[in-house]
Amino acid sequence: MANSKYEYVRSFEQPDVLLPNTWIVVRIDGRGFHKLTTKYNFEKPNDRRALDLMNAAAAGVMKELPDLVAAYGVSDEFSFVFHKDCTLFERRASKLTTTIVSTFTSYYVFLWPTYFPTTPLSAPLPTFDGRAVLYPSVRNLRDYMSWRQVDCHINNLYNTTFWALIQHGGLDSQQAEKELMGTVSSDKNEILFSRFKINYNNEPDIFKKGTVLYRDFTIAPTPSQESASTDPAPSQAPKVVVPTTDSTSASTSTPVTAARTPPLSKTAAEKDRKRRLKARIAIEHIDIIKDDFWDQRPWILTGKAP
Amino acid sequence: MANSKYEYVRSFEQPDVLLPNTWIVVRIDGRGFHKLTTKYNFEKPNDRRALDLMNAAAAGVMKELPDLVAAYGVSDEFSFVFHKDCTLFERRASKLTTTIVSTFTSYYVFLWPTYFPTTPLSAPLPTFDGRAVLYPSVRNLRDYMSWRQVDCHINNLYNTTFWALIQHGGLDSQQAEKELMGTVSSDKNEILFSRFKINYNNEPDIFKKGTVLYRDFTIAPTPSQESASTDPAPSQAPKVVVPTTDSTSASTSTPVTAARTPPLSKTAAEKDRKRRLKARIAIEHIDIIKDDFWDQRPWILTGKAP
Amino acid sequence: MANSKYEYVRSFEQPDVLLPNTWIVVRIDGRGFHKLTTKYNFEKPNDRRALDLMNAAAAGVMKELPDLVAAYGVSDEFSFVFHKDCTLFERRASKLTTTIVSTFTSYYVFLWPTYFPTTPLSAPLPTFDGRAVLYPSVRNLRDYMSWRQVDCHINNLYNTTFWALIQHGGLDSQQAEKELMGTVSSDKNEILFSRFKINYNNEPDIFKKGTVLYRDFTIAPTPSQESASTDPAPSQAPKVVVPTTDSTSASTSTPVTAARTPPLSKTAAEKDRKRRLKARIAIEHIDIIKDDFWDQRPWILTGKAP
Amino acid sequence: MANSKYEYVRSFEQPDVLLPNTWIVVRIDGRGFHKLTTKYNFEKPNDRRALDLMNAAAAGVMKELPDLVAAYGVSDEFSFVFHKDCTLFERRASKLTTTIVSTFTSYYVFLWPTYFPTTPLSAPLPTFDGRAVLYPSVRNLRDYMSWRQVDCHINNLYNTTFWALIQHGGLDSQQAEKELMGTVSSDKNEILFSRFKINYNNEPDIFKKGTVLYRDFTIAPTPSQESASTDPAPSQAPKVVVPTTDSTSASTSTPVTAARTPPLSKTAAEKDRKRRLKARIAIEHIDIIKDDFWDQRPWILTGKAP
Repeated sequence: MANSKYEYVRSFEQPDVLLPNTWIVVRIDGRGFHKLTTKYNFEKPNDRRALDLMNAAAAGVMKELPDLVAAYGVSDEFSFVFHKDCTLFERRASKLTTTIVSTFTSYYVFLWPTYFPTTPLSAPLPTFDGRAVLYPSVRNLRDYMSWRQVDCHINNLYNTTFWALIQHGGLDSQQAEKELMGTVSSDKNEILFSRFKINYNNEPDIFKKGTVLYRDFTIAPTPSQESASTDPAPSQAPKVVVPTTDSTSASTSTPVTAARTPPLSKTAAEKDRKRRLKARIAIEHIDIIKDDFWDQRPWILTGKAP
Repeated sequence: MANSKYEYVRSFEQPDVLLPNTWIVVRIDGRGFHKLTTKYNFEKPNDRRALDLMNAAAAGVMKELPDLVAAYGVSDEFSFVFHKDCTLFERRASKLTTTIVSTFTSYYVFLWPTYFPTTPLSAPLPTFDGRAVLYPSVRNLRDYMSWRQVDCHINNLYNTTFWALIQHGGLDSQQAEKELMGTVSSDKNEILFSRFKINYNNEPDIFKKGTVLYRDFTIAPTPSQESASTDPAPSQAPKVVVPTTDSTSASTSTPVTAARTPPLSKTAAEKDRKRRLKARIAIEHIDIIKDDFWDQRPWILTGKAP
Repeated sequence: MANSKYEYVRSFEQPDVLLPNTWIVVRIDGRGFHKLTTKYNFEKPNDRRALDLMNAAAAGVMKELPDLVAAYGVSDEFSFVFHKDCTLFERRASKLTTTIVSTFTSYYVFLWPTYFPTTPLSAPLPTFDGRAVLYPSVRNLRDYMSWRQVDCHINNLYNTTFWALIQHGGLDSQQAEKELMGTVSSDKNEILFSRFKINYNNEPDIFKKGTVLYRDFTIAPTPSQESASTDPAPSQAPKVVVPTTDSTSASTSTPVTAARTPPLSKTAAEKDRKRRLKARIAIEHIDIIKDDFWDQRPWILTGKAP
Repeated sequence: MANSKYEYVRSFEQPDVLLPNTWIVVRIDGRGFHKLTTKYNFEKPNDRRALDLMNAAAAGVMKELPDLVAAYGVSDEFSFVFHKDCTLFERRASKLTTTIVSTFTSYYVFLWPTYFPTTPLSAPLPTFDGRAVLYPSVRNLRDYMSWRQVDCHINNLYNTTFWALIQHGGLDSQQAEKELMGTVSSDKNEILFSRFKINYNNEPDIFKKGTVLYRDFTIAPTPSQESASTDPAPSQAPKVVVPTTDSTSASTSTPVTAARTPPLSKTAAEKDRKRRLKARIAIEHIDIIKDDFWDQRPWILTGKAP
């Protein structure tokens, strides 16, 4: 039985190749996580286990997709960055986006029992949606990353104060909201300190700055990594959960480049890919707005394993 | 700290709203499942547990997304059908596609231990990619569905014969491939019967016809459902795994319609949605090429709960 | 000198093929025609020469693009309809849209002296922009056409009354605008009749109903064409200006069809194309909202020359 | 009569906003110009009047669309460059592309009698199609421009030799084609010189290098413009045909910028626009591959009137 009679339906498939030589950011967001945090009794304003689980899932994605150069996460969202020269899946938007969403979801559900051993999942299960956005220049890309980290700060300062008013101040949520209406950063810092003896600066960096992931090609530990290791969990958790794997996806990445930079030879590309697969995934909670982060890790923006 | 300095990056987000009044099919495929079937020792040519797991995950997707009117699966692929009047997520392609891929993945990983109790998952984990395709007419949509079911038949007949030659005929895979080169359907039927006493017609329907899912609004069991119930597993497995849930996604579906049919009133739309959420998800292995399937379940194509 | 070093830039070209099996409407609009009507002293509220020029240009487009099945124009806009099975230029949106805009502009400028013999053009010249919109069903397509014709009526009744108040009532434009604020159709009809003895029903159909163009495959003149011929200009003007031409574009139309209807054989397709090229372009000012228009000319929606 | 019943058809219009912060090149091509050159007896291999007409039409486009920073033309094609910060028509692809195609066509037909006074146009008329392509970096943009100029050279050397063999060598077109098969540049130069005493280097620059247009903000003539003025026609022809006009389109350009560069204030933007409108359109036939052209006219790439 030939299938030719129906095969014309393939002509309805439309291409969705992303413009070459632009940075691809795939941003995923938890779907209905407000309900989910209630259902599973997440701690407020931040649940460390939930953040560690997000970061571990992101590390899984980074491991399986060596084309990713960085990722940044806060709350129930994560942004994954493909280099502008990336040719994975011929830059098809659907394929890139769904692969990241699926891989993230897969790790999130798989690792849930590790981070919430006493709270089993039940339907409806946690899910994520996602989309790809293109940024033509490094300036645009870094501004996107800065935007997310500033957002992290704004939301966390608000949430920290909001929940302090409720948990320690005895207010209900409506009263807390009213109290914070019209306040600026310094007001919230003042409320935290004067009423609750909380110095916001001393809050954990993972809450204040979110989490950035990247491949670490340095040989010796650098100061920035040491500072990260004062924050114990992220460097432990992922070690357990994200073994160096031979990704199935990687094989579909072809060394074709649309930019004018000469494409790597096949052997060089394969070597490069192996270096990426082997590299440790660094998981840090540091400033990515200033130049330091990028200057000290030039391989993130060059896309070349050093 | 205001975030306005960086907020311009939002202007890089591009809309991806799908054309109104067209059928949306989101097709997902297992990524690198060839390796996966080896890693977890799937039975050849078909692993019943793996298919049941696929179907249970699809049922989970159907339950959580009441806008879906049908789904069809075979091997490691599944096609989900949104009605042409669907306005879920304002018909944004990324959102629809990633939500389905994520929900499917979530159930697949979550339910894995139920179907493979003695074979725990390990990284790299199972993942799926997906894409949305539009079909303007019912004819196009049904031809798409027919295309997948014909493909199921062609592949299954080939695989059944191929593996019979290896498992019972002592050939290696190269010899089996050579043996089948140039054969047509009747040749393969003949090989199966004359050499291995296998009557292909008696093979399980789930292998020969794949699996169709839809909302069952009938009150009394109909003949077609009884015939499905001769096939025990699918009607059991999903019962366990897909409880009626109050989907988080459904709330974002707005009763705006782009076609000329008058949109349902808010109350009517809410009632309709509730009927959909409550409806049993039928899971069957029957012909969807001929008119019977569609004629007997008119609500699939009308999109109206009867 | 090889050009391979730079040829990579072709990879930045993105496909823009329109979904198969959907009606394509290319709508063009005059750019800055408000200024233009002042510059060239167009008569208000309607300038018959200007409308005849628009219609003649549209007839030129219909002649050169035999894939078009109909067109509808009002004021400085025109909508051109490609059949849902059309495969011209592989349905590339840019190519279809720019070809229509360019052909229309070309005829408009070329024919200008015929319709405005004493008013030569000068820079800035008349120009048009355009876009393609897809309509999946005949219902959607006809509703689009109805929308434009209803718009024609609403605007023309307003403009007729507005200019009567100015030209015959001695009001200035602000007073006229104020007078019409909040009025409904019957009010405007009443103003026209009671103050200016104008019976709106007796206004020319070309003003009230706009202009529809289609290929006329009838052998004997039908009543509807006779009624059109009471309106002298449109049937004359195009005769002069739009000779039967062997279009250069037609040769790029390939008889590939994405819908399930069997594609015409090459010979049959060529015959069909020739019949279309030879057919007279009917130019009428009649109702296209009711069924009559479409029922009496079934070949417009079937797309088959009878 | 309200139009709301049909207005839903607007929901079928899909946005086509081009990615911000990328260079937009709209390339137009003559449709069926091979036939046209025969019909109007264009001189071979190059018809100076036809090229001057193309350039004059392009100058008209540049004048009416002050957002354009440059244009490059060869044969029957022209590429128009919008600056990466351009926000004209909110960067809608259809609007940008059709406006350029229409304006070019309008000038081409309008100016035809100036350049071909004894050869009146007749149907089918000259038309152009076009498309927009995005280039994220200056490197990509310049490589695109270089690609077109190299193409110009390759084609012109071929055509010059091909027509010399026919016009002076007495070959027919098949013989000439055969003669040139497999030849490289030096072979063709040799054929031209040894057989026909033609030194290809002495051919007019307009044939060898095509034509670049840009706004000339320099006060005193610079060396590069003087060199152009050795080529008399281009500086004359456009003077006649492209008066400084107050474009209707320009008013729709809004000073919103998607890139991080602070947008100009309204007054500053208006001033900038006026400077652009007043600037002379330079029309030259020089190398645009090397850095010189761009280094000497920095305002083209900065997009700021100096």
